[in-house]
Amino acid sequence: MVINLAHISDVAKLAGVSAATVSRVINGTAKVDEKKVKRVLDAINETNFKPNEIARSLYKKSSRIIGYIVPNLLNLFLIEIGRAIEDEAFENGYKVIFCNSEENQEKEAAYINMLVSMNADGIIISTSGNNPDEEICKCPLPVVVLDKCGNNSYTVSVQADNYTGGRLAAEHLIACGCQHIVQMHGSQEYSNARRRFHGYSDVCEEHNIEPLHIESSYDYNGGIVRSRELLARFPKVDGILAVSDMVALSLYRVLHETGRRVPDDIMIVGYDNLELSSLMTPSLTTVAQPMDEIGRTSAKIIIDMVENKKLEQSDVILPVSLKIRETTKLK
Amino acid sequence: MVINLAHISDVAKLAGVSAATVSRVINGTAKVDEKKVKRVLDAINETNFKPNEIARSLYKKSSRIIGYIVPNLLNLFLIEIGRAIEDEAFENGYKVIFCNSEENQEKEAAYINMLVSMNADGIIISTSGNNPDEEICKCPLPVVVLDKCGNNSYTVSVQADNYTGGRLAAEHLIACGCQHIVQMHGSQEYSNARRRFHGYSDVCEEHNIEPLHIESSYDYNGGIVRSRELLARFPKVDGILAVSDMVALSLYRVLHETGRRVPDDIMIVGYDNLELSSLMTPSLTTVAQPMDEIGRTSAKIIIDMVENKKLEQSDVILPVSLKIRETTKLK
Repeated sequence: MVINLAHISDVAKLAGVSAATVSRVINGTAKVDEKKVKRVLDAINETNFKPNEIARSLYKKSSRIIGYIVPNLLNLFLIEIGRAIEDEAFENGYKVIFCNSEENQEKEAAYINMLVSMNADGIIISTSGNNPDEEICKCPLPVVVLDKCGNNSYTVSVQADNYTGGRLAAEHLIACGCQHIVQMHGSQEYSNARRRFHGYSDVCEEHNIEPLHIESSYDYNGGIVRSRELLARFPKVDGILAVSDMVALSLYRVLHETGRRVPDDIMIVGYDNLELSSLMTPSLTTVAQPMDEIGRTSAKIIIDMVENKKLEQSDVILPVSLKIRETTKLK
Repeated sequence: MVINLAHISDVAKLAGVSAATVSRVINGTAKVDEKKVKRVLDAINETNFKPNEIARSLYKKSSRIIGYIVPNLLNLFLIEIGRAIEDEAFENGYKVIFCNSEENQEKEAAYINMLVSMNADGIIISTSGNNPDEEICKCPLPVVVLDKCGNNSYTVSVQADNYTGGRLAAEHLIACGCQHIVQMHGSQEYSNARRRFHGYSDVCEEHNIEPLHIESSYDYNGGIVRSRELLARFPKVDGILAVSDMVALSLYRVLHETGRRVPDDIMIVGYDNLELSSLMTPSLTTVAQPMDEIGRTSAKIIIDMVENKKLEQSDVILPVSLKIRETTKLK
């Protein structure tokens, strides 16, 4: 849905005043003659001009700054996306400010407010915490929500096709001959993890295989803890879908310590296709997320909103693919 | 060196005007009576008040923002430091803005200017390029230069003890029985790489061992290319000092592909002690840089400059240590 906004000049023309006067009425920045105020307010009603915060930010002078808020700067998936955001932004004369919310909603809110007060042109955010939606919904800037969404709908969201990602990984392990496949998945409060899990469990159902699963965070340390738990809970496991390439590295470590060989005893499929995944030994079979495209698309949406004065509302879903390497093979 | 600055109120008192008037004279923001201008200028001379850009920024209202500019967001060493900067900053009511210069001096200058114009309280920077000093030297904000320095002297620099780091790594490989030790080192234009190289070559000289070396970047891809070159140039190599833990991972890959076993055929010592290094298989012996302390110290210096109105000039050098793991062993 694209909302075309009436321009402030339309209001000024109808009210017979200057655009500056309309701005003064809206923002209360200086005293305006009462009759003129009435004419401006009438014209705003008639033109359906929306003098709300978003519209105001669109009419303000662009600061050429895009904010990128992530919950963890050591999450390489988000950093690779950030690099793409920056490439697209710089090619269009914008700068990018990276902010780290550390999975802390108070920090997230503080950074949103900081970006608003410095008149950033928009925010690209990977939300943290369980209920971050309120801050984002009331944010007066254009916002693109990356990767995971909570239960609310946002202005624009950009993510990879997580359902297909879950399917591709599960189908590949089944094709390799695995029968006890465990999916390590992220918190089901988020759409990305839910969709991946549905992809995996649909494939299991189609093949009459019992879906086995365990929740994990996406980082190295969480990966170590959950990998140990996984082996204890599912001793017959012969295939694992790691929640991220970073967690796959932790999984290697735990399998090595417990004397399991990859891929002979246990096969692994990672998720993300980080630079790291092709360098690990053995190199990691993984689901490739289009990080470059996710980043560039998000930046393009913000820039388009700034330059074409349009508020877009949409869900962008980008395709994933499977990269087959050394951690899986035909049994 | 600590310079105590005369306060603007000292000038105002002596000139018999308000602090606001002094500010107007300095900044030229409004017209001031000529006689008063003369009195203010005389008072500035007499009190030795320095109305330069740095002093002015110190007297401006703090924005409670610290900028952190890095040349590569995928350099995990710099990101772990960034996390520590942020912890220290947040505990003191400051926010941190991360900026990625991508080894591009034009971007670096653009981010410095952006931080100046948003009235940030200071900049912590890991410089990129060969001659970045000019932009940093003329920056009107307090600047802390991290890790590597060029040939100029900066206001404040914070880095780990790279000389000792180079020594520790070389001494350990010699103690393990290695005789053909190659140091992968960073560009010798920077102090960190020069000091590490001196540490390594001093140890070689003390043991009558020929120093062997090859330049490398600090990232995965550079690591792959240089590791291949290293094996071609030094076929007898039995010990390698990697320029970073990330490059050590690339080195594993190349050694694996060429059928060399670690540590039996070739021993490796990494550099940094990233989270990654203890998870790699085999786990990586490495020189631990105090990333948390580097980050917190840098942030403390900026905050101290803001809150105590002092300009410090110093070089902070923090200690390193050796973490012995599975990539080295007694022969």
